[in-house]
Amino acid sequence: MPDSQPSASSIITLTSDFGTQDQYVSAMKAVILGLHPRATLVDVSHDIPPQDIMAAAWILKNTAFLYPSGTVHLAVVDPGVGTQRKPIALRIKDQFFVGPDNGLFSLIADYESFEAISLDNESFWYKQRSNTFHGRDIFAPVAAHLANGVSLGELGPPISEIDTYRWAIPIDDEDGIQGWVVHIDHYGNLITNISEELYKKVALDHMIKIYVGNTIIKQLSTTFASVPDGEPAAIVGSSGMIEVIINKGDASEMLGVQKGAPVSIMVKD
Amino acid sequence: MPDSQPSASSIITLTSDFGTQDQYVSAMKAVILGLHPRATLVDVSHDIPPQDIMAAAWILKNTAFLYPSGTVHLAVVDPGVGTQRKPIALRIKDQFFVGPDNGLFSLIADYESFEAISLDNESFWYKQRSNTFHGRDIFAPVAAHLANGVSLGELGPPISEIDTYRWAIPIDDEDGIQGWVVHIDHYGNLITNISEELYKKVALDHMIKIYVGNTIIKQLSTTFASVPDGEPAAIVGSSGMIEVIINKGDASEMLGVQKGAPVSIMVKD
Amino acid sequence: MPDSQPSASSIITLTSDFGTQDQYVSAMKAVILGLHPRATLVDVSHDIPPQDIMAAAWILKNTAFLYPSGTVHLAVVDPGVGTQRKPIALRIKDQFFVGPDNGLFSLIADYESFEAISLDNESFWYKQRSNTFHGRDIFAPVAAHLANGVSLGELGPPISEIDTYRWAIPIDDEDGIQGWVVHIDHYGNLITNISEELYKKVALDHMIKIYVGNTIIKQLSTTFASVPDGEPAAIVGSSGMIEVIINKGDASEMLGVQKGAPVSIMVKD
Repeated sequence: MPDSQPSASSIITLTSDFGTQDQYVSAMKAVILGLHPRATLVDVSHDIPPQDIMAAAWILKNTAFLYPSGTVHLAVVDPGVGTQRKPIALRIKDQFFVGPDNGLFSLIADYESFEAISLDNESFWYKQRSNTFHGRDIFAPVAAHLANGVSLGELGPPISEIDTYRWAIPIDDEDGIQGWVVHIDHYGNLITNISEELYKKVALDHMIKIYVGNTIIKQLSTTFASVPDGEPAAIVGSSGMIEVIINKGDASEMLGVQKGAPVSIMVKD
Repeated sequence: MPDSQPSASSIITLTSDFGTQDQYVSAMKAVILGLHPRATLVDVSHDIPPQDIMAAAWILKNTAFLYPSGTVHLAVVDPGVGTQRKPIALRIKDQFFVGPDNGLFSLIADYESFEAISLDNESFWYKQRSNTFHGRDIFAPVAAHLANGVSLGELGPPISEIDTYRWAIPIDDEDGIQGWVVHIDHYGNLITNISEELYKKVALDHMIKIYVGNTIIKQLSTTFASVPDGEPAAIVGSSGMIEVIINKGDASEMLGVQKGAPVSIMVKD
Repeated sequence: MPDSQPSASSIITLTSDFGTQDQYVSAMKAVILGLHPRATLVDVSHDIPPQDIMAAAWILKNTAFLYPSGTVHLAVVDPGVGTQRKPIALRIKDQFFVGPDNGLFSLIADYESFEAISLDNESFWYKQRSNTFHGRDIFAPVAAHLANGVSLGELGPPISEIDTYRWAIPIDDEDGIQGWVVHIDHYGNLITNISEELYKKVALDHMIKIYVGNTIIKQLSTTFASVPDGEPAAIVGSSGMIEVIINKGDASEMLGVQKGAPVSIMVKD
């Protein structure tokens, strides 16, 4: 295990549903800096909706592998804190991950080989302990130790499986694709679970109709500004997924569409 | 004084009610980085409710002493900016604090010895001056100088007292404890001013009833997940205080409880 | 050009309308840290209202020149991403700026000499490309390269003009000043486009009346606390502009005033 472990980068990212009005994020940073004063801390988001594990999983999937080799990703959305769910650390490709084993790492472990351990070695935990804040007491200190070059093997015993949700996988046949909205971003853009690859496989060089909310879109555009202000369009977003947007508008609000809503792409001959 | 001063850590934390939509936080960071380009800046929170001095005092109490020795905590909730309230700096144990003398440091100075000075030495202020933004003009540069190793004594003359609010102290006798909600966090958890110590002194090994909002809770639980989803529970939170929570829910909303609401613990022999 | 270029400071500021709930900010930081692992990243604001180019321009004007020489300011409010608007980099005085050429830099280029280039050299772009996220694909890597000491000339050919909006300029004569509200801050303070200089030129040593929303203010005060709690006042704010505020209150809400509302200062000889 140690021989395949990438060198630590001193970069630690933080993803949580803690919000920014309380002391929770600061407490984690304080513990990290106590163990690794020169760590580079990067807030990914603390505005994950409370307890929304899959929203955090989505963010991790779309950002973690952009970081330099050896980056440690601390992720805490942890409604089951203090229960039997295991605290874990993972290496996936050249990135490290630390957090609760509750599905948070579903979308990244799903399709990649990974090395996982259970964080059983309490000598790497914080001196203070609570039943309700493993972010401060377990995950933050472990992230700091990983960024300091401690190996996964020192932190606890290997585990062969982690908790994975079955992620929303779209259905397709020669007539089209049935997917849905998996994320609505800050602008109200509707990000679907239909990838550019799947779209090309099923619909390339065909006439299409995309049904979403109260509208029908008849082609894939290349940019937000391909349509007039206030008009809906479908584009391939920066995450490689089909997105439904309104140029200079909020698609979620204007089309009346929430997370989980169906998106159908119908292929016409 | 200088001989007891801890070495500066180059870590500066920032706590304010400035929000994140304006240039105010950035202006403080710019001034700090101009004086100390390698400072490690940590945002604690800029989402303190406007002018809510005690909310900031609460955050400082719960996070400041987790930081490495020599950390400088810059705190600016300053409705009296430009009036007679003094700009001050403090050392409490091995941590430094900089901000207005308006009660912000009540909860940490209350029970610890402290060393305090009035920030009278204008040579450590910023070149630009305003009557409305001492965060940029006085507190940020002073924090940078402290993090650079300047001693408290150079910044101004000692003062023997600071402005302290009398913090909400619960009442207790053999029949129970009368406290109240002092903070509502991002999840809607109700944090009370009843500490675990006080609870143990009065109620340990007794049957209890906890009255809060429209509910009665009959025991102390250990984790959020000790009760079914949507049910209320009382736990000892990560700050060492009794908290009333709803498993995977918002207690403030579901129990109709605001900051300041009473929480009674009745001991039944 | 290179001989006049200031040394890079390794400080990169980020200003955007990306919000903090998605992966967009993190993606930019990941790309920067991949190219410049020791960069100091400073979030100015990611809460610019969506597509509000001039709100971002206002923030840049009020904060950028407080930073140390050689700081790189990455600014992305980019509704026209993927269209003909050019990606650019600028040097203005001793600061660098990177972002879309859509008016974002209007308020700082307006009155200063500047050196500008079009970001045509794709070898400094990110390996991944999208039509919708030039923040990640062009601006972040270019900012990192600038902070690493790459010269403007290497990034692309010089351009002589950039897109500038004509900014709201108040009208004045001997009877008074007609301006308006250009920004409403987190507290609800109304920041106008009437500078202290203009005020002094027209109104100093005169009786005045300031008309705004549903109120009339009869003098300029020095601090928020110059008037009783809940009363309106006009002050010179920290940005050097006249602001209308309510002591410990929200002026926008209490006076019923939105961005763009007129503010008249009448001089009564």
